[in-house]
Amino acid sequence: MTAEVTGLMLIGAAAVRGSRGAICAVDPSSGEELQPAFPGGSADDVARACALAWAAFDTYRETAPEARARFLEAVAEALLGLGDGLIGRAMAESGLPRGRLEGERGRTVGQLHLFARLLREGAFIEARIDPALPERQPLPRADLRQRHIALGPVAVFGASNFPLAFSVAGGDTASALAAGCPVVVKGHSAHPGTSELVGRAVQQAVAACGLPEGVFSLLFGSGSEVGIALVTDPRIKAVGFTGSRRGGLALVAAAQARPEPIPVYAEMASINPVVLLPAALAARAEALGRDFVGSLTLGAGQFCTNPGLVFALAGSDLDRFVAAAAAVLQSSAAATMLTPGIHAAYEAGVAHLEGNAHARTLARGGKGAGPHQGCAALFMTDAAALAADPALTEEVFGAASLVVRCRDLDEVRAAIEQLEGQLTATLHADDADQGAARALLPTLERKAGRILFNGWPTGVEVCDAMVHGGPFPATSDSRTTSVGTLAIRRFLRPVCYQDVPDALLPDALKRANPLGVPRRMDGAFQGAAPG
Amino acid sequence: MTAEVTGLMLIGAAAVRGSRGAICAVDPSSGEELQPAFPGGSADDVARACALAWAAFDTYRETAPEARARFLEAVAEALLGLGDGLIGRAMAESGLPRGRLEGERGRTVGQLHLFARLLREGAFIEARIDPALPERQPLPRADLRQRHIALGPVAVFGASNFPLAFSVAGGDTASALAAGCPVVVKGHSAHPGTSELVGRAVQQAVAACGLPEGVFSLLFGSGSEVGIALVTDPRIKAVGFTGSRRGGLALVAAAQARPEPIPVYAEMASINPVVLLPAALAARAEALGRDFVGSLTLGAGQFCTNPGLVFALAGSDLDRFVAAAAAVLQSSAAATMLTPGIHAAYEAGVAHLEGNAHARTLARGGKGAGPHQGCAALFMTDAAALAADPALTEEVFGAASLVVRCRDLDEVRAAIEQLEGQLTATLHADDADQGAARALLPTLERKAGRILFNGWPTGVEVCDAMVHGGPFPATSDSRTTSVGTLAIRRFLRPVCYQDVPDALLPDALKRANPLGVPRRMDGAFQGAAPG
Repeated sequence: MTAEVTGLMLIGAAAVRGSRGAICAVDPSSGEELQPAFPGGSADDVARACALAWAAFDTYRETAPEARARFLEAVAEALLGLGDGLIGRAMAESGLPRGRLEGERGRTVGQLHLFARLLREGAFIEARIDPALPERQPLPRADLRQRHIALGPVAVFGASNFPLAFSVAGGDTASALAAGCPVVVKGHSAHPGTSELVGRAVQQAVAACGLPEGVFSLLFGSGSEVGIALVTDPRIKAVGFTGSRRGGLALVAAAQARPEPIPVYAEMASINPVVLLPAALAARAEALGRDFVGSLTLGAGQFCTNPGLVFALAGSDLDRFVAAAAAVLQSSAAATMLTPGIHAAYEAGVAHLEGNAHARTLARGGKGAGPHQGCAALFMTDAAALAADPALTEEVFGAASLVVRCRDLDEVRAAIEQLEGQLTATLHADDADQGAARALLPTLERKAGRILFNGWPTGVEVCDAMVHGGPFPATSDSRTTSVGTLAIRRFLRPVCYQDVPDALLPDALKRANPLGVPRRMDGAFQGAAPG
Repeated sequence: MTAEVTGLMLIGAAAVRGSRGAICAVDPSSGEELQPAFPGGSADDVARACALAWAAFDTYRETAPEARARFLEAVAEALLGLGDGLIGRAMAESGLPRGRLEGERGRTVGQLHLFARLLREGAFIEARIDPALPERQPLPRADLRQRHIALGPVAVFGASNFPLAFSVAGGDTASALAAGCPVVVKGHSAHPGTSELVGRAVQQAVAACGLPEGVFSLLFGSGSEVGIALVTDPRIKAVGFTGSRRGGLALVAAAQARPEPIPVYAEMASINPVVLLPAALAARAEALGRDFVGSLTLGAGQFCTNPGLVFALAGSDLDRFVAAAAAVLQSSAAATMLTPGIHAAYEAGVAHLEGNAHARTLARGGKGAGPHQGCAALFMTDAAALAADPALTEEVFGAASLVVRCRDLDEVRAAIEQLEGQLTATLHADDADQGAARALLPTLERKAGRILFNGWPTGVEVCDAMVHGGPFPATSDSRTTSVGTLAIRRFLRPVCYQDVPDALLPDALKRANPLGVPRRMDGAFQGAAPG
């Protein structure tokens, strides 16, 4: 397997040259276009990928969990087999440094292995059996068995900011494939070469595992036509998306307007409030300021969980925090942002804050030498201004954050109560802050998918307990997560089998339990401990 | 507790006279209006109920599962305490016979007890713990804990056809209250007196259990204003509905158009296909015909799972089935339908089929003597006509069904493939039919929430394994069920706690597990077997 980029789309087992407007990646560190160009797909290409996915669906969803686990492992192996060519191309297309991308590749591979383990465990099927009660009065009970099955082919839209972990073979794809759903990816236009390479790794794994070719396709397109055609194709039954609020809401609207509406899991906008409680702030204002800027500027601030809003009580401890943060931020180097468009949007957002009469600029980071480098920015306002001007709480994607000075803890709570839904909410709290923290927790639980103490929200562990989700508009569906094992549930639905003969039951529900999956039998849990 | 009906709405602990257009129940067996009238609620009434629900939410959602279990049991007890007054009023308002309503009361009470057991078990919280790994390389892992919390106040719209089990204290209310969500019910205009009585039982249980009054409110309204005001109130976070496709889709549209869209669980239209496979049909055509009409005419055909479409191969066995079904149906008595409106819609639907050039009337049931009695109707068509005319597959709510003659099993499969999503799909199959059944199963799994063998879809067991749901338009969300314990999941969302001090963790996630709930610890299942 070589890391050669050809500019082709992958439709089932075929590699296909697009016939519409081409996209070209840009190396954001130089501003130069990267070759080759990727001609975009047509409506016919979308229809072909969806037809293949549909043709594959009934077979693929009923493969044994072990077979799907091996497939995910084969994808991981093929991904690693791309070697340094993948890393080099991803670096060129994203401006992200080698270490970060090598780490992200590890995360992507780890994610595939985690879902393989989940498949082998079998609890995700949620098998439930209520045996027949033929003698029950006044009416007998039938034999009732429930399992979860795959929803159908899934459209995945890769994110710009994680060209590996949230893209072609990222979390959405891994969880959908694990659930038994064929996947049609619309590759992100910022990293088509990376997408093609990873797509070929998946395509190779599909073939090596003897699966129907329609299990995976990868399309490109320069406008919204391919994306909308994909979401409105009747054979697509769910959508995974990570990106902007505008983009996510457009997909939600298209999905809802279908004759058969389908779920869209869009991870969109979050400004990730951080609260510095008084005792913690008094005890370590300078360290908090330093660590805050470390989280803020990580990866040029291009994380969904970037800390964009910091609440604290006005006073000398906050002044110390601000001074320390400003000092570190001023000496922070500018960093190449992912795309010229993201850089331009960042500059516009920062300029908007600089021009806001209610926000004061505390510090700017070092100016960059390259064409698309973002320089960090720290602003201050107070809670009254924040309440009066909702524009202050809009996400600026990049290393910009706003410190909100509050009179008292009630004002902190009231300010957070006014925020929209968030991926994360963070408290810095010492023992003496416990009462204040306890008073804030109900609000934070209603606002965010993840609550952190004494840490920083960047860094999202891939595990059973993670929630990378949250109330609207952090996501379009707060009942789910896009990171961690619970993500598989997005692509499943329950089906009940009543008095179905054993020979015709799916294996997970057969009397002999040939898959050995954990089951709930007449209310009681049976089988090996999950994991 | 007396069974006196006063015509008042229940807003928290208060009983409030509405100020808008009044609704009056009609006794469908006589066509006479029942007293008292129920003046409808205003926008202010809706806002007050929602404000109380919101004020109650943070307290109620954090009550111990045991406290909520006792509350549900108190509701059940208060409901039984209404005695025969409740049954009499429900009979007058619905035209349903005593035995049916006594059975339905038992089901309603049983449902509340089932959720009480689910609460005591604790598995619904889905507690997951990934302990910290401070020594992990290259980065330590934080302590991560996940639980599910209540979504927020829920609006429930009662169904006409189950004035107890799918209404004020029915499945939606029981599962939402179990999840920790306050409930605001919009009572169905067909049975306001029944609704008020049951509402008073819930209100009494709220007070007796010392819960915040906003945990439950009950509103009435003659048009769609109260319902739309409820669904668009920013404090409402989810909606449960059982009723017509038009009504359900109006609520979905209103919920999606909110600044913060919310999930709507609408159980809507289903025609519930039944397939008679050749060996089963040959072996017992007459018995199948008889039992089919029994299911079709049960409760005047007013079940969501009524068998509205029967597929079989043309031939003498089908002729025998049809002859037996027609004979039983012709001698079936007309039955009073739930409301004048439902009766009128039934007559219109039947007339539409009678006038359809592609449908032949096989039999009509006996004409009724009362004003709103539906007389059963059986039609026949063939698969080609069904494919050509989608109007033939539209649900006619009531005891009307259409037999579809097919050339071969491929035509059966193709016809079902063209159907919209369904609550149920039924196969009648003998051993010799196993191959045919196996070939149909993948299609049925994609089309329906419940698959039955050798039974009839009317009759929905309340248990762990039940799925009363299915792909659109059977429901607006195929990932859920409105009957059975899984229904609680509709009203929950996951939250992750990262490095939260033990003292501040919710009980379900504390180190010592004071609630004793089953938990997934570092991938392995811990705790008492559920149930």
